[in-house]
Amino acid sequence: MIKHLRSAADLDAPTATLILDTAAEMAALSGREVKKLPALRGRTVVNLFYEDSTRTRISFEAAAKRLSADVINFSAKGSSVSKGESLKDTALTLQAMGADAVVIRHSASGAPHRLANWVDGSVVNAGDGTHEHPTQALLDAYTMRSRLGRLDGLKVAIVGDVLHSRVARSNVLLLTTLGAQVTLVGPPTLIPLDVAAALAEKTQVSYDLDAVLPDSDVVMMLRVQTERMQDSYFPSAREYSRRYGLDVARMKKLPEHAIVMHPGPMNRGMEIAPEVADSPRSTIVEQVANGVSVRMAVLYLLLGGK
Amino acid sequence: MIKHLRSAADLDAPTATLILDTAAEMAALSGREVKKLPALRGRTVVNLFYEDSTRTRISFEAAAKRLSADVINFSAKGSSVSKGESLKDTALTLQAMGADAVVIRHSASGAPHRLANWVDGSVVNAGDGTHEHPTQALLDAYTMRSRLGRLDGLKVAIVGDVLHSRVARSNVLLLTTLGAQVTLVGPPTLIPLDVAAALAEKTQVSYDLDAVLPDSDVVMMLRVQTERMQDSYFPSAREYSRRYGLDVARMKKLPEHAIVMHPGPMNRGMEIAPEVADSPRSTIVEQVANGVSVRMAVLYLLLGGK
Amino acid sequence: MIKHLRSAADLDAPTATLILDTAAEMAALSGREVKKLPALRGRTVVNLFYEDSTRTRISFEAAAKRLSADVINFSAKGSSVSKGESLKDTALTLQAMGADAVVIRHSASGAPHRLANWVDGSVVNAGDGTHEHPTQALLDAYTMRSRLGRLDGLKVAIVGDVLHSRVARSNVLLLTTLGAQVTLVGPPTLIPLDVAAALAEKTQVSYDLDAVLPDSDVVMMLRVQTERMQDSYFPSAREYSRRYGLDVARMKKLPEHAIVMHPGPMNRGMEIAPEVADSPRSTIVEQVANGVSVRMAVLYLLLGGK
Repeated sequence: MIKHLRSAADLDAPTATLILDTAAEMAALSGREVKKLPALRGRTVVNLFYEDSTRTRISFEAAAKRLSADVINFSAKGSSVSKGESLKDTALTLQAMGADAVVIRHSASGAPHRLANWVDGSVVNAGDGTHEHPTQALLDAYTMRSRLGRLDGLKVAIVGDVLHSRVARSNVLLLTTLGAQVTLVGPPTLIPLDVAAALAEKTQVSYDLDAVLPDSDVVMMLRVQTERMQDSYFPSAREYSRRYGLDVARMKKLPEHAIVMHPGPMNRGMEIAPEVADSPRSTIVEQVANGVSVRMAVLYLLLGGK
Repeated sequence: MIKHLRSAADLDAPTATLILDTAAEMAALSGREVKKLPALRGRTVVNLFYEDSTRTRISFEAAAKRLSADVINFSAKGSSVSKGESLKDTALTLQAMGADAVVIRHSASGAPHRLANWVDGSVVNAGDGTHEHPTQALLDAYTMRSRLGRLDGLKVAIVGDVLHSRVARSNVLLLTTLGAQVTLVGPPTLIPLDVAAALAEKTQVSYDLDAVLPDSDVVMMLRVQTERMQDSYFPSAREYSRRYGLDVARMKKLPEHAIVMHPGPMNRGMEIAPEVADSPRSTIVEQVANGVSVRMAVLYLLLGGK
Repeated sequence: MIKHLRSAADLDAPTATLILDTAAEMAALSGREVKKLPALRGRTVVNLFYEDSTRTRISFEAAAKRLSADVINFSAKGSSVSKGESLKDTALTLQAMGADAVVIRHSASGAPHRLANWVDGSVVNAGDGTHEHPTQALLDAYTMRSRLGRLDGLKVAIVGDVLHSRVARSNVLLLTTLGAQVTLVGPPTLIPLDVAAALAEKTQVSYDLDAVLPDSDVVMMLRVQTERMQDSYFPSAREYSRRYGLDVARMKKLPEHAIVMHPGPMNRGMEIAPEVADSPRSTIVEQVANGVSVRMAVLYLLLGGK
């Protein structure tokens, strides 16, 4: 087993599959009757969050607690960090305190890689800048496999601000490792030519959502980060929604078995219509539930729970 | 047993009495020797707080932990909520994460009712806008019963900004259900005629505290919310304190057995004099202790702990 | 055993030694195999932090959790405190909630002493204003003893802004109780004559770091609080660093066995050079690890764990 999960690239196909299989076991065990498993009793998991992300933090916290680990939440806002403490010094502190795993969310791409040099425990990337978010990709893959029965050969369209999306990046890496065919869809300014070229080996690129939908098993809508909409390369909200928003009419172009995914939180009415978000095709609520199972599996396997 | 506690109106007399009796058992069990009960082991209680309220949050957290539940604190400040996530999406997230109970504090009246439509777990209202705060009413009733031996026929004066007080509203509902006689006391602008008329069925209204005290078993002072004192209908601080503040002279008008209550935090010197707050008649510290027992009882009964 | 740890002056030599010996046992027990001890199961430890100090809070939280206590974090920012609740009312609340120990960090010197009048549980000072920080002194003493084998007769230089340092104050008290010889070193404006005179009984004072180093077993660098550097009595950053910063050249003046300590977080390049901080003489990371063991010992002994 690997020691850290810094990037979806840390996962080869057997390891990724082992995580998904373990997550399925966790989901089965986490029924009403045995919600609490003793696997990580006495282990300490630190949530080191330099950016607010209550959903992700809670998901990791719930996962660790169901495995009976102790959880310490470290919100870097208003902490010694504001007194100028470096990531390295914080890492040495956590190391000295005996953290068995550090779950890190950071605005700087690559922070989890640097952290892994300084701590003996396992590092789990919970989102670093515009770089990666590997447990999101794992829960997405888990959700696809559980809805559609397989990943190999699956056709997945990832739609939106691909350029700035750590969710897209981790999904491309993981899904192609597991044999899915990914098509990235978005406005040309958000999938520039050089990015498209770099990805060309692994994925296809399209600027026309309507053309891609009829041949997709999965359509994954990315969140529009409204703070980016000020930028000159971003289309207007109306234009974006008209061309790349998933409304009811567009959803009908999907094959009957196809599913609609979104990592949340959604901008209802912007990238996804409320009727689509709440339709039976939508896996948005399942994704959240699967997130806990997948994170249980990751912590269990990284920490070598017995 | 009921599933949710959204309002004191959810409670009929037998259910309310069961909660108070169970709280008494919890208080007895929570002695030094058996502080930790296994009843909710493996259950997850989420504290979903859209408003700061450390006291209430800590009280619920202590109650849940003494029952061996896992507690996840979700402070909605700086969370995905600030990214525009709706209460519904947050609810679906908590639902997906397997929350067995959600304790919600929200600035919008009615938020717990809406939340209960979206989650499978139990919803407990920990204060919604100016609407209700039912566990506060339960701990107040518990305190009265434990000090005075009964609730039926008890004469209770609730004094202050009745118009905006969720504590007053929940107390009126619960106390009248349990047979107490409630008199609301405050300046006319804070108990306007239409409110007084609406309450006339269940309670009496008075604008003269001195007239009410000699015939009261309980006087419950409401907190003056200083941010409301800017409003034109609010008397000046000096005027308010002079007419509706409980000082030592006024306390002497109470019957000898009568008790003085306050939900805290107090404005010492405004609605209550320090000597009154610290007198043996005052139940303010007991109310806090009783709050933990009552919340243990509520969580235990709602979650069907065995 | 004492009930509270408000000041290092609460500790006589046998009690301080008992804490250090217990901490050594805790460190031995806290290996991989028995990370979780049942000693404080069912006890509640409240972290009452009026100032941000994530490192100290996490250290106490980790210590309490390893002893199986329940931990409730109470950050006074944005709490009822901002509604004007006094420390006394907060204390009564925590008391009523059954806190067995309250760990308090406060900007006002003496707050832990006042708190101890109002609660039945034990009070542990986690830093009060410029006054004291006794568990820091205990972990420093533990680190010296574990590196150098003894405290009696040890020569310790404490260097920097002695005037405002609660770390320095607690260390002077504890180290002299345990037989070490302390020399305070810093600019004259930060060790004024009256302070030097008051300390003269117990410690020596020097304004010349280079003269003190060759005869020191331990050099403890205090953190420069950059917010104080605006003050007129503070030397310029360059001047301070040149005269009182510990760089590689200066470190070479120490005897071969001497160690370099820092309470963290460091200003690398200001009071300590990066090469010194990361050298084998430096105990900075050990200090953090020892902090957890020492706090386990303090909580265990104060709460009378069996």
